[in-house]
Amino acid sequence: MIAIDWGTSNFRAYRLSSDGRILETRSAPLGISSVEPGQFSAVLGEQISDWLAAEAGPVAMSGMIGSRHGWVEVPYVPCPAGRTEIAAGAHRLTSYEPSPIVICPGLSHRDTAGVPDVMRGEEMQILGAVDECGDGMYCLPGTHTKFVVVEGARIVSFRTFMTGEVFGLLRQHSILARLMDALDDTDDASFEDGVHRARAGGSLLHDLFGVRTRALFGELPTASAASYLSGILVGHEIREASPRGRVTLIASASLSPLYARAFGMFGVECIIPDPEAAVTRGLASVLALLPEENV
Amino acid sequence: MIAIDWGTSNFRAYRLSSDGRILETRSAPLGISSVEPGQFSAVLGEQISDWLAAEAGPVAMSGMIGSRHGWVEVPYVPCPAGRTEIAAGAHRLTSYEPSPIVICPGLSHRDTAGVPDVMRGEEMQILGAVDECGDGMYCLPGTHTKFVVVEGARIVSFRTFMTGEVFGLLRQHSILARLMDALDDTDDASFEDGVHRARAGGSLLHDLFGVRTRALFGELPTASAASYLSGILVGHEIREASPRGRVTLIASASLSPLYARAFGMFGVECIIPDPEAAVTRGLASVLALLPEENV
Repeated sequence: MIAIDWGTSNFRAYRLSSDGRILETRSAPLGISSVEPGQFSAVLGEQISDWLAAEAGPVAMSGMIGSRHGWVEVPYVPCPAGRTEIAAGAHRLTSYEPSPIVICPGLSHRDTAGVPDVMRGEEMQILGAVDECGDGMYCLPGTHTKFVVVEGARIVSFRTFMTGEVFGLLRQHSILARLMDALDDTDDASFEDGVHRARAGGSLLHDLFGVRTRALFGELPTASAASYLSGILVGHEIREASPRGRVTLIASASLSPLYARAFGMFGVECIIPDPEAAVTRGLASVLALLPEENV
Repeated sequence: MIAIDWGTSNFRAYRLSSDGRILETRSAPLGISSVEPGQFSAVLGEQISDWLAAEAGPVAMSGMIGSRHGWVEVPYVPCPAGRTEIAAGAHRLTSYEPSPIVICPGLSHRDTAGVPDVMRGEEMQILGAVDECGDGMYCLPGTHTKFVVVEGARIVSFRTFMTGEVFGLLRQHSILARLMDALDDTDDASFEDGVHRARAGGSLLHDLFGVRTRALFGELPTASAASYLSGILVGHEIREASPRGRVTLIASASLSPLYARAFGMFGVECIIPDPEAAVTRGLASVLALLPEENV
């Protein structure tokens, strides 16, 4: 089969063996935000026409490709939800021959106040990792970080934090921007200073201003300011998500060590599965549950 | 005398009677960020040359005009500080004749962790209001909101919150921007919904994402989304500043009713002095303390 993680910014396709191993990977910066409406089929053909021609098997997709601005809008499945509920909500594209293409739904959850939350794509990584990593809290950091509670291999609740996006806004557009050099390498000590500051339990909106004043007083070099800001934001996020004991951390190669370090400062142990194996396993396990006529 | 509040974005000059009443006001969008180095004297002349020619008295200034990017850098005075300490730190410009010009310093404060905070300009409004409004907590909302503790008519500590700037960043540059119409008038009910959400004690970084998801689910009209976002940010700021009983609110005409409404939801009563009278009284009271040869 072919597993595709098609998000806002990136397209990632995996050709899998019948026992689920990744045989080949293709990726491109062709997320749905850079594809014109009606062009998804063409983009897919450009990327993996040889796989499709070789009848590499059914295609399963997850991510923003199933959103309002994607190929087709696949309604969110409400939590609690596991593989069964996601398979039941999957959408078969009938317009694409000869390979059957299935787009998996994302998940929604309403908190006790009735405010909704959503994810598209992360659920597949979680369901692909849960056999190996078990129940408990999962953290998937990024532009919109997800903290997810898993029980009985099902996603029962989750919360999104705008941490990565707020970092980018402050980094590029705020009064703090001019105080910062490019973030080539994280300055670990300054990142830890930021996490430590956040752990102390103050206010995020106040701690952000401290990036400016520490720089103004010559106590934070421009080469370290972005790392300190990152530590403040990640630290506040983790404090407010309040994980206990251990989390499963599914993250990119750049964010994984940062978050593991920050969790460690909160006394939280990290289980770190392979994020690509997780998404392909998740998609394969959902595909296996679909009725024959849909794949 | 002439009192001048010269900040980052605006220049505001007040001609005062000998008993401190405002006789005339001039303002222009000529904050220090739009004045070239070396041009402060010229800009001052353009704005109030007739007052200076008429020997309207000594000129006292406060605000970012005393910062590193202002006319001359006047070092911060550390808290606790009142009129006496500010007068002692004031700087007389000897290069400007015939009217003596005095630039007042801002204040600095270090919290228990040693992280510095700064203000320039707000201290003068507080010291101008304190005779009328008394000791206690002061709130001066804006791009960088100040929460200030006043005891014995002196500023003993304060905290800056980047609330207004974060609102602007999210409003203009974030994923939330496209969900929002122009903020012509505040939608009071949505603003209150946001404050209510913040009061519930969740995470700011998570509550921000709720602006998106509520809009996505059709539960927040685009005309109301900016008001809801504003309520979330102001609500988190107030919750974390944790005022008790009452605050003195020194705010612009646009922010004053919003903040008064939000404080009310926290059970906090607001005393609201006239912000222009506050700054002129503050500057006049500091000027009165200066040795004769400095004015």
